[in-house]
Order: sequence, then structure tokens, then C-alpha cells
Amino acid sequence: MPNTGEIQAPRIAVDAMGGDFGPRIVVPAAVDAAREGISIVLVGDEQRVKAELDKLDTQGLDIEIVHASQVVEMDDKPADALRRKKDSSIQVACRLVKEGGAHGVVSAGNSGASVACGMFVLGRIPGVQRPALAGILPTEKNPVVLIDVGANVDSKPQHLLQFGLMADVLARHVLGVQDPSVGILSIGEEEGKGNAAVREAFDLLKRSQLRFIGNVEGRDIFTGEVDIVVCDGFVGNVALKLSEGLARSLSRILKDELKSSWLSMLGTLLSFGAFKRFKKIVDYAEYGGAPLLGLRDIVIVAHGKSNELAMTNCIRMAATSVRNNVHGHLAEGLAAHKDLAAKPDRNAA
Amino acid sequence: MPNTGEIQAPRIAVDAMGGDFGPRIVVPAAVDAAREGISIVLVGDEQRVKAELDKLDTQGLDIEIVHASQVVEMDDKPADALRRKKDSSIQVACRLVKEGGAHGVVSAGNSGASVACGMFVLGRIPGVQRPALAGILPTEKNPVVLIDVGANVDSKPQHLLQFGLMADVLARHVLGVQDPSVGILSIGEEEGKGNAAVREAFDLLKRSQLRFIGNVEGRDIFTGEVDIVVCDGFVGNVALKLSEGLARSLSRILKDELKSSWLSMLGTLLSFGAFKRFKKIVDYAEYGGAPLLGLRDIVIVAHGKSNELAMTNCIRMAATSVRNNVHGHLAEGLAAHKDLAAKPDRNAA
Repeated sequence: MPNTGEIQAPRIAVDAMGGDFGPRIVVPAAVDAAREGISIVLVGDEQRVKAELDKLDTQGLDIEIVHASQVVEMDDKPADALRRKKDSSIQVACRLVKEGGAHGVVSAGNSGASVACGMFVLGRIPGVQRPALAGILPTEKNPVVLIDVGANVDSKPQHLLQFGLMADVLARHVLGVQDPSVGILSIGEEEGKGNAAVREAFDLLKRSQLRFIGNVEGRDIFTGEVDIVVCDGFVGNVALKLSEGLARSLSRILKDELKSSWLSMLGTLLSFGAFKRFKKIVDYAEYGGAPLLGLRDIVIVAHGKSNELAMTNCIRMAATSVRNNVHGHLAEGLAAHKDLAAKPDRNAA
Repeated sequence: MPNTGEIQAPRIAVDAMGGDFGPRIVVPAAVDAAREGISIVLVGDEQRVKAELDKLDTQGLDIEIVHASQVVEMDDKPADALRRKKDSSIQVACRLVKEGGAHGVVSAGNSGASVACGMFVLGRIPGVQRPALAGILPTEKNPVVLIDVGANVDSKPQHLLQFGLMADVLARHVLGVQDPSVGILSIGEEEGKGNAAVREAFDLLKRSQLRFIGNVEGRDIFTGEVDIVVCDGFVGNVALKLSEGLARSLSRILKDELKSSWLSMLGTLLSFGAFKRFKKIVDYAEYGGAPLLGLRDIVIVAHGKSNELAMTNCIRMAATSVRNNVHGHLAEGLAAHKDLAAKPDRNAA
């Protein structure tokens, strides 16, 4: 169902089997989204999905089940999942969208498989060279979009330009940022710092219509001073997982120290939400889905550990993307920069 | 003074002008190190250094001052610092070592300039293709060596192999790790994940004498499960600065929340060391110097914000490196892998 304009009644295919918790979390999350007026197609093992639905009050909600007999496991290789599990919930969900049964897909399953199915089944928007995963991370202020967080490695400068263009659309039309600032991740603030691809992409971004602010460093990501940070998927994936790991390590250490000291009573307070902002950053993985930008339809890759709220948020994000015609804006943004992305002029300032 | 064996009385040239605090912090740190039997040469503005020394009891200590009329500022470009500030404290310190007046250099000044001066003035150990900066980061358990954290970008597979070999020597002979495990930073645990350089380096590392454990991900760095993590300097620098930034953001948020709630009394407790391990990770930048491995002599690049303890630790690390003949072991380790580093066999398993 290629999106050709604003759609007021978005219909989202939800991979009911995905994530560490499967239907037990995904089904109630989808029901919550349906209560907000989003049409839902739950894709997965019909019996298990129905069993979860039966526990909830779904009267008057627009929820359909589409059966899929297979499940992609977290350790399946994406290529194998594509070839050997043609009736997996994620692949059936993507086909459903392709064939017009829904406007977008949300899955907390094996992210490599979701990316592969999205790319293979749905295909790219004409003009997109490489679809990219946009991580949305909470910071000290507003969230930051880190793009790409793992769909590509060894990105070329023109790919990095397109990542910036696609994230600009996401920030404006889904996150509601007025005039998003765009930085490129490098290892020094001054122009000329970085590796070969970054230095060339710097030139392209500077000549684009984006509000490009130049190089940003690793330490700038979480301050909230920049709206979009562009990077290769290798670097972005390392950065994303490092952040997650470090935040969890620090959280674990903090709890240990509270428990082991005479301050142990504080450990209890911690769990009662005295540290909301701290927890929000530490647990960001549970709050955000990563939109896979550049495909013909919306695909949101949710974190495997997503809880119910995180899943509902991902479904909301998919619906907002459909309602606000993200795809139309993506195509426009890319078309406006066609020449720049096609032939980077290496001699330009 | 090329190091040709174990030296029992190491003499360290300390850039007295380096870092955000200059002689006020560096001089007392050097005096502390001298009290432990390390010979010190303080390089910098003689008057200012002497004024700081006069405040301290230095009787019986082996401390010399060597005058340098210039200072590299934090925003000087490394190439400019090299060409235009030939009498800067960092360049004079490097020349002193080159000419036999000391065994190693420690500087908290402009790190790009320290790397450039080290490379240009001291030169590489024969066989080293690219010197690399080894970041030493505290984790939940033992420290991890992250190499390279910024001396190189666009590293080739054989450079990554050499980074691993050099870090192995550092871990064994300076950090006292018995049989260090080595991982390569990638975006998935399975062999075959990563970008082109990482996939080839995986093969080389597998065929080396190192205890290679395969790919590690960003989230594994701070768990302390691996002793050495090899990566390109672009990725390593992003990772290092991201960690620093995130840890500081979380720390700031935690303090804010404590202050703004009825739990404000806890803010005070925080500062009394109830959270030692947490603070240790958050403040790691202040505890470690990054050795620049692969040069003919020891160079330790300290963090610009280094406090007195951090500087003393860096001087101790330089002295330990000299005493334990790190250079001899580096040359041996590299020689033993000469064929592997020279001609990566792309067809090998």
C-alpha cells in the first residue's frame, strides 16, 4: 500500500511474535493503540494471539488477526529468515503492507531480519540509495535522531547526505521539530576532521538545504544541543549499543552501591521513580523504535526488550508517520537534492 | 633515549604547561611521583614552574627543570604546533627524550599536538605501521583497553591487528593482566558481521598468537568481560567521547534530580563518596592517560581535565612502562607477527 498522501485512518501491521516477550506484551500494546483509533492487524500464531486478545476488552476496536505459521528467532541470520521462513510473522506483515492490507509494520523481533524483510519485500523509494535506521534517543533536553544505527556499513558520502535528508523529514513531520539542526559525527569540531567519507559528506551537507551545523563529537550526542546526528551504520550501531551498555552498567552499579551501603533504603526510593529523567535515559531502549527510512512503506524496528508502553509508542509512531505523509515528504526532500546526491563535486568548498 | 631493556631508574619528562590547569596541577603531581623514586624533568616556563615547586617540599627529590618558551594551546592545530612552536613544552620534552635526557613523556596538553610531536620527533618502532592511542577505561570489573581512540582514521586490517598486538603488551606488562582476551569491535557477535576492514582484521587476529575471542559489541565494552577491544581510531574516538559525554549527562541529571526533590539531602551524600564506583566510571577521564603505542619511546597522553591524582597516575604508568621494557616487548610481539601484518591472506579461514 504505497503511501501517496495523507491518510487519516492508518492501519498498522504488528508482528505479534516479535521481541523477547512476544504476544504477552505485543498484544496488549496493540490493543492500547487501537483504543486511540489506530486500526491494527496482529500478525502471528492465531491461537496464541487470540488467547491474549481474549484476556482484554476489545469491544468496538478495529483489530484483525492474520495467521503466520513461522517465527524468526533472535539468533536467525537475516538472509536465512528471508529465504527459509517465508511464512514468518515479520515477512507476512511486510507482504500484507505490500499488498495493501496495511500502511506500515512494527516489529520488536530480530532487527536484522526486519530490515532485510523490509528492504526485500517492500523495496526502496525511488531515489533512495540506502535505507537507514533512525535511532531516537532521549537526551538532557529534546530527543536526538542518530542515523544510521545499523542498516549499512561502509557508507559513501552521498549516502550520509541522504541519511541527513531523511532524518530531517522524520524530525519535522513525526517528532514535531520546527527547523532541525543537523550535525555529522566526527572526531573533532573543526571542518576537515574525520575520515575520508565524513569529510566529503561534510561538503555535501553544507551545500544542502538542511540546517547543517558541522561536525559534532561523541560527547555532544546526549547534551540535546543538536537534533540530528548523521553517521555510518557501523559507527552508529556501536554508539547506540555502547550507550545502552554504559547506561545499564552505571544503573547497575548505582543500585549495587545503594544496596550495599547503610543507604540501602534509598535503593527502594530509586525504584519509586525519584530518578525519572535518569531512568528515562538509562532505559531509552524501551521507549523508542527505530524507523527504517527510505522504504516504500513505514517499518518501525522496536527494541527486542520493548515493554508494553514502548510497543504502543512504536505503533503510534508508525501511525503518525502515515498520517503526516512522511513518505511523500521523503520523496520530495530527496528529489530536491538529487544532483547533490548523484554527483558530489569534490572541489566545492 | 631508545629503550633497549629494563631500566630500573626511569626518568620522565613532564609537560608542565599542559592541561586545563597547567603547572598548578602538573607540578605537585610530578612531585608526588618523584617521592616514589621516579626522576622527573619538568618542561615549561622556568619561572612559573619554579614558583610552583617553591610551594612544595622537594628536598632530596630528583627533579630538574628544562625551560621551554612556548605553549601549545588547546585550540592550536597539531601541524601548526609542530611547525610554529618548536620551543613549546611538549616539543622540547619530546626532543629531550630523543636526545637521551629522559625515557618517556607525559602531557595533558593538546592531544593532537602530543601525538604529532611524538610521531614526528621520536619516530616509530621499526615494523609499526601506525602508532595508536590506547584508552584505558574503568568498567564494572577490570579496566578495558580500547585501541585506537583517535591516532588514526580509516585503519587497514593489518593496522587493526597491530593495535591488538600492542595492546596485549600494554595489558600484560603495564596493567598486569595475565592472559588478556582480545575482541574486535563490531556490530554483531557472529563472525562475518561488521564492515570490510573489521571482517578482514577478524581473520588476521584469529590467526595471531593473541587470545582472540571474536567480535564484541558496543554494549560489551563496559561490562569488563573483555580486556582489550580493537577498533579504528574514528570509531574508538567517538566511543570514548560518547562514553564521557553520556556518563557526565547521567551524573548531571542524577545530581539535578536529587537537588530538585525532597531528597535533596542525598545530594550532599553523593558528594561524600557513597557512590565511589559510579563516580569512578563517570570521572574516568580524570583517572587515565592514553599511552601512544608504537613510538620509539613512551608517550602518555593525559586528559586535558586531569587532576593531580590523574597526572601522578600517568607519570607512574610511564615509569612502569620503562621499567618493564614495554618497548622491547612491543618489538618482539610485532616481529613475531611480521608475516601476518605484511601480507594478509584473504583466503584463509
